[in-house]
Amino acid sequence: MAEIVVTDGMAPEAIELLQKAGHVVTLKHISEADLLGGKLSNYEGIIVRSATKLTGEIIEASEGLKVIARAGVGVDNIDIEVAGRRGIPVINAPNSSTQSVVELTIGHLLSSVRYLPRSDRGLRNGRWMKKELKGTELRGKRLGLIGFGRIAQGVANVAKALGMEIHTYDPYLPNKVAKMFDAYVHKSVDSLFKTCTHVSIHCNLTPETYHLVNEKRISLMPGKVGNIVCGNHIVNCARGGIVDESAVLQSLENGNLASAALDVFEIEPVPENYDLVNHENFHGTPHIGAATLEAQSRVGLDTANNVIKFFKNKKLESIVNQKFLNS
Amino acid sequence: MAEIVVTDGMAPEAIELLQKAGHVVTLKHISEADLLGGKLSNYEGIIVRSATKLTGEIIEASEGLKVIARAGVGVDNIDIEVAGRRGIPVINAPNSSTQSVVELTIGHLLSSVRYLPRSDRGLRNGRWMKKELKGTELRGKRLGLIGFGRIAQGVANVAKALGMEIHTYDPYLPNKVAKMFDAYVHKSVDSLFKTCTHVSIHCNLTPETYHLVNEKRISLMPGKVGNIVCGNHIVNCARGGIVDESAVLQSLENGNLASAALDVFEIEPVPENYDLVNHENFHGTPHIGAATLEAQSRVGLDTANNVIKFFKNKKLESIVNQKFLNS
Repeated sequence: MAEIVVTDGMAPEAIELLQKAGHVVTLKHISEADLLGGKLSNYEGIIVRSATKLTGEIIEASEGLKVIARAGVGVDNIDIEVAGRRGIPVINAPNSSTQSVVELTIGHLLSSVRYLPRSDRGLRNGRWMKKELKGTELRGKRLGLIGFGRIAQGVANVAKALGMEIHTYDPYLPNKVAKMFDAYVHKSVDSLFKTCTHVSIHCNLTPETYHLVNEKRISLMPGKVGNIVCGNHIVNCARGGIVDESAVLQSLENGNLASAALDVFEIEPVPENYDLVNHENFHGTPHIGAATLEAQSRVGLDTANNVIKFFKNKKLESIVNQKFLNS
Repeated sequence: MAEIVVTDGMAPEAIELLQKAGHVVTLKHISEADLLGGKLSNYEGIIVRSATKLTGEIIEASEGLKVIARAGVGVDNIDIEVAGRRGIPVINAPNSSTQSVVELTIGHLLSSVRYLPRSDRGLRNGRWMKKELKGTELRGKRLGLIGFGRIAQGVANVAKALGMEIHTYDPYLPNKVAKMFDAYVHKSVDSLFKTCTHVSIHCNLTPETYHLVNEKRISLMPGKVGNIVCGNHIVNCARGGIVDESAVLQSLENGNLASAALDVFEIEPVPENYDLVNHENFHGTPHIGAATLEAQSRVGLDTANNVIKFFKNKKLESIVNQKFLNS
């Protein structure tokens, strides 16, 4: 029977679930000034998506707050360390959007090698580009997955059905998981880039992964498999900032990249007249990895169930800041 | 040691293969007037793609011609009946482009449900359409495949990895083939449309399949699975004319279709200012199903090997007009 505020929206069925469990749910956006002014002290729980930024200062100003829930995966909008030190668990819903991101990633890979958005743009401009747009197959190519968590594993599963060879770099993953997918495990990021014509990003944004995809690494990519000059292709449906966008633009211009497909950007929404999104071999989507009816329904229900468990003192599965809670 | 003319181009390695086998290869386009004037009488073999139209009249004017090879699959540009009656086998290369068409079909399906070309158009126009473009997953949806030959089977294989349920209608196929893919076999086209939210075309264009996808059938589609209102989606990477394009435009306008993705059209290239390709929920490609480096290399080699076999009097695997040859 807690007071819970939902600041970035949530599926109606999830709100209903919280209310049925006896909680009082308030749905409203709260300004940064009000957050800093201690407005959250009125609530025991807060559920956010990515719009609300819970900085350390804001969390310290929120006296009565007992739990922070992220209806989604990434928690880079929450200072999980400060929350942990104050005894506030940060919980998320890591599985809800997996399939949606997997499908978007495969869609971007196929759209890249077959020029789908560019073909369609041609048709709309009265140009029948059949001759110019000779693509390549994904079958037989080497797909390098940076990070091999749930989403990358889902991508590997479909990519294998398409006939791709799976490569991965993930310093946090036991090798046996990669072996389940017949994935070749690389010991360095550079080794993966030297081997793979297609690279897709599936790690978190951390100081360690910031600009992990840079000009030097792109220049290592082989551009062909056997006789087939398929060019090099980058997809990022993980987090903006992992890919250095100015390096991508330069590599599209000098031909080191044949295509780049991004769902996430360093600055979102992207700036006006942004050269990268106007390049003919680029295509992008506006951070829609989790933007499906299915994912949004699941994320709401998963989050609501997690919050209900918390207030019943039940064991939680996805506490993001466990290590800081214990410190 | 035959004189062979290649009128619509072919991969260099395939031409080399023919020459190494001792044949004299001439690479040139021949005008319709010259074809009608009997120009082909100078050659024992002709290799075409889809540009050269070999009508009955042209074939009858080609005295010395012994074999017609189509470097590709569809033979609707060749009068196979007249050729057969004159004892000229028409041979094709049916397997070369299978994987390329499979990959394009999956790419179109994913692009449809996640609005890839539309998202990209938004970015280029300075619009961040994250809120408007809520998509749906393919997982859990029913994919109806009209025709269940090699390409449809390849599509089914990948669609199963994506978690789709496979449905098919194919009056020429033994049920046991569909069973290998856990596909639900429909006894009528209407039954498939009543059941499936996603329909993809993988049959030939014949009088029987002309406008098989029409307004009435589209209106039968269910538009949802359980609680998820995913809308109805049509993909055609087979042949123009199987889908009634004016019915598709009308269905996009009245909402019976959430999307349509076409690689093939009734008139190619599409007419200027064609309303269908300008609809915001349409996206298309300019007949690029087989337009990959891999398919074009394979199709050339497969065709060259077939022609070489013919002139060595060896058994051929893919004679399209066998029944007319025997009559």
